[in-house]
Amino acid sequence: MAKELKEVVNKEENYSQWYNNLVVKAGLAENSAVRGCMVIKPYGYAIWEKMQAALDKMFKDTGHMNAYFPLFIPKSFFNKEASHVEGFAKECAVVTHYRLKNDPDGKGVVVDEDAKLEEELIVRPTSETIIWNTYKNWIQSYRDLPILCNQWANVVRWEMRTRLFLRTAEFLWQEGHTAHATKDEALEETRKMIGVYAEFAEKWMGLPVIIGHKSDSERFAGAEDTMTIEALMQDGKALQSGTSHFLGQNFAKAFDVQFANKDGKLDYVWATSWGVSTRLMGALIMAHSDNNGLVLPPKLAPIEVVLIPIYKGEDELREITNKLKEIGDRLKKVGISVKVDDRDNVRSGFKFAEYELKGVPVRIVMGPRDFKNGTVEIARRDTLTKENISQEGLTEYIQKMVEDIQENIFNKALNFRNEMTTKVDTYEEFKEVLENKGGFILAHWDGTPETEEKIKNETKATIRCIPVDAPEEDGVDIISGNPSKRRVLFAKSY
Amino acid sequence: MAKELKEVVNKEENYSQWYNNLVVKAGLAENSAVRGCMVIKPYGYAIWEKMQAALDKMFKDTGHMNAYFPLFIPKSFFNKEASHVEGFAKECAVVTHYRLKNDPDGKGVVVDEDAKLEEELIVRPTSETIIWNTYKNWIQSYRDLPILCNQWANVVRWEMRTRLFLRTAEFLWQEGHTAHATKDEALEETRKMIGVYAEFAEKWMGLPVIIGHKSDSERFAGAEDTMTIEALMQDGKALQSGTSHFLGQNFAKAFDVQFANKDGKLDYVWATSWGVSTRLMGALIMAHSDNNGLVLPPKLAPIEVVLIPIYKGEDELREITNKLKEIGDRLKKVGISVKVDDRDNVRSGFKFAEYELKGVPVRIVMGPRDFKNGTVEIARRDTLTKENISQEGLTEYIQKMVEDIQENIFNKALNFRNEMTTKVDTYEEFKEVLENKGGFILAHWDGTPETEEKIKNETKATIRCIPVDAPEEDGVDIISGNPSKRRVLFAKSY
Repeated sequence: MAKELKEVVNKEENYSQWYNNLVVKAGLAENSAVRGCMVIKPYGYAIWEKMQAALDKMFKDTGHMNAYFPLFIPKSFFNKEASHVEGFAKECAVVTHYRLKNDPDGKGVVVDEDAKLEEELIVRPTSETIIWNTYKNWIQSYRDLPILCNQWANVVRWEMRTRLFLRTAEFLWQEGHTAHATKDEALEETRKMIGVYAEFAEKWMGLPVIIGHKSDSERFAGAEDTMTIEALMQDGKALQSGTSHFLGQNFAKAFDVQFANKDGKLDYVWATSWGVSTRLMGALIMAHSDNNGLVLPPKLAPIEVVLIPIYKGEDELREITNKLKEIGDRLKKVGISVKVDDRDNVRSGFKFAEYELKGVPVRIVMGPRDFKNGTVEIARRDTLTKENISQEGLTEYIQKMVEDIQENIFNKALNFRNEMTTKVDTYEEFKEVLENKGGFILAHWDGTPETEEKIKNETKATIRCIPVDAPEEDGVDIISGNPSKRRVLFAKSY
Repeated sequence: MAKELKEVVNKEENYSQWYNNLVVKAGLAENSAVRGCMVIKPYGYAIWEKMQAALDKMFKDTGHMNAYFPLFIPKSFFNKEASHVEGFAKECAVVTHYRLKNDPDGKGVVVDEDAKLEEELIVRPTSETIIWNTYKNWIQSYRDLPILCNQWANVVRWEMRTRLFLRTAEFLWQEGHTAHATKDEALEETRKMIGVYAEFAEKWMGLPVIIGHKSDSERFAGAEDTMTIEALMQDGKALQSGTSHFLGQNFAKAFDVQFANKDGKLDYVWATSWGVSTRLMGALIMAHSDNNGLVLPPKLAPIEVVLIPIYKGEDELREITNKLKEIGDRLKKVGISVKVDDRDNVRSGFKFAEYELKGVPVRIVMGPRDFKNGTVEIARRDTLTKENISQEGLTEYIQKMVEDIQENIFNKALNFRNEMTTKVDTYEEFKEVLENKGGFILAHWDGTPETEEKIKNETKATIRCIPVDAPEEDGVDIISGNPSKRRVLFAKSY
């Protein structure tokens, strides 16, 4: 492990390699034999399951139910919503046949050309089309509304350049799809769900985010408005972490979904969709981790507290392990997940490094002297500090510590973001900050695609969002000099 | 609803149509626009989620962790295990291209022939091959074993004749894939997991099952032994409800997965795999439901108790609903899921029929007189009995009733199965019972494929399993007259 750990490059040296090293060494995920598709390993999946459980509860608490729609979408469905097909139907996995047969040459199997599909099927890149085609049959009157469905599923987008969790051909996500009788209700749902994502990011992931609207050019293909949460990574780049779309009546019109309103008149249904994906795993790793490995917020850590005995000989091992198990059981009773690692075929130093790499928030160590004195050594993963304390009142102490770690991780990320957010008033300043400091840049924008495009082409920075809480402030666009009413958020991004 | 209910055909009249009516009318699932793929609707998915939660806990309690492996499998992987390719690689969805492009004629999108994959990808019908190709890199020494992984995933098998839940092109399942250092440990795992399935079927689904081994001809493609749980449906047909496979060293050899044992010698790894799917939903529906609709065991019912007010005017509605909410809150506190249905735009009769159709185990109704007298009317879905009782001690009464319903549903199915299990000693008798009574038939078999095939061809009945608890008993094969040591279980099946 010590050797393996050394292979994790420092993040100051090569951020991208540091990230990749961490994901692989900590046992979160790895590349598979299929180009662009990842294997999510048990430890990584355990974190994802904690994310899912928290989000799923939030969705249900806001009135949503889960359902499941087909993996495959008939090709023709994508043609029905004009801007959607441009955005989604191009780079995707296409199923053309439904049978293989034995190779006539006797070498394995080949595609059976007699089993060609009449219409190709697309492996879903997102499910608006198949879902609105289904909703058509579910909705006749205002009494059938709202429909508040969510789906946990895999989706495929054929990406050429992939990175574990951040951009993969297949990824896991949830996609909410709701149908409403009024525009206001759909707008309210769009806002509510981006709020749910923001709360999850901040309270569970310890990740401060900025809520805002996407500019026209960055909007979801088929949406009238896209709301986003944007987070800042340690290399000063932004990561779009979740989106919620107000779809207007676009999909209802494309799939002819009308309902009789209270006055008996026919109207098209209003829609939203919203999603977060395994990309959040990338955000979690990149936002908090250090050169020793992962730093996990306790609320998402598969193991919150690891307990390790230091011993000579079997008797001491048994004695100390039993004591650690008692402590562990008390922690479990108050809802803290623990692991007692009494393996006797690896050294303690190896264990320390392993759990540090895996980001376990708290480590409790007990040696023979601790055992005699009624003490333990506690190490915090976030601050890398150690202390010796009494076993008396340990459960309450750890409870408070775990809460403190959760808060500290968030505050650290928030302070970093605040330091890395710069207001600029000229394009010169903009370029200077982007090149030498990075991070979020708040600048005035006149709302035209021309300014946005020029900046993107020349600097690679994009408008991450128009923050919902941006104060009104008179200014001028840094490119055009035209008047602007508020600053928008620029950054380079993943 | 009354009208809709009438459209549910009696099961004595047309069992198959009764089943399909129920699935659709109760809002469990429906066919989608994609041939053979279903939409699992919110109410159906809520039952599946309860199944998943219970199974997932059982898997974790037996030491397994979840992981996720790719949706796509390179075609060549299927050639590596000889019998596996025969069993699985034929009827499947084949991805041949990764891009669409605008139709040169301006009509939508067409497949881009420039984006043809070098090697076709198969949408997984089961994941042994991609997983063992991955395990190869995870396993070097006995210290890396056992690996105990499970995956919740969608799989695709191109079925020509599909039926909702029972046989669909895409279905949801879990597949466990374990790797072991010894044959004994793998055999033990195979048995342990079929035991987990049996416990789940009986304790949660209220479904009595027979555990046994498949005959050679019915074994999983690539397995050395397949264990199964077999359940009996109300039409006298068997439904294979879950399987656990001892894979020997077949996949380790196919993917060259060797490990250094404690003596430092290289050996191939031993494997198991096991799975249950959304087919269990079909079993649940078919085993217990009646001509009024679903009958759900309380442990899997999304709503265990529905509370309905009977009222005249708004004041009564509010008064009675408030009282019902109090009762509901007390039930929730002891872990019973409830719904208070105070909709005022549908009649009570409609509500009664709806919850009966949806199989809600207990209905509590309160009218003005009940309100005054401190009573309620309770109706049980399983027995269709009603009674008026005091609100005093209602929580405890309902708690006991819910347990009783769970037990009663199981016992009813068990009695039915016992009645429908017949021992026969001649082929004449066999055919007579199969034709006029159906159900499970226990008959002697000499262990040869010839007898098995003759019976299958002539009667469509197959050996469901060789029960693990079949007592030793001297007899003769009903076809060949050769000696046999025990009876095996025959039935027609889904």
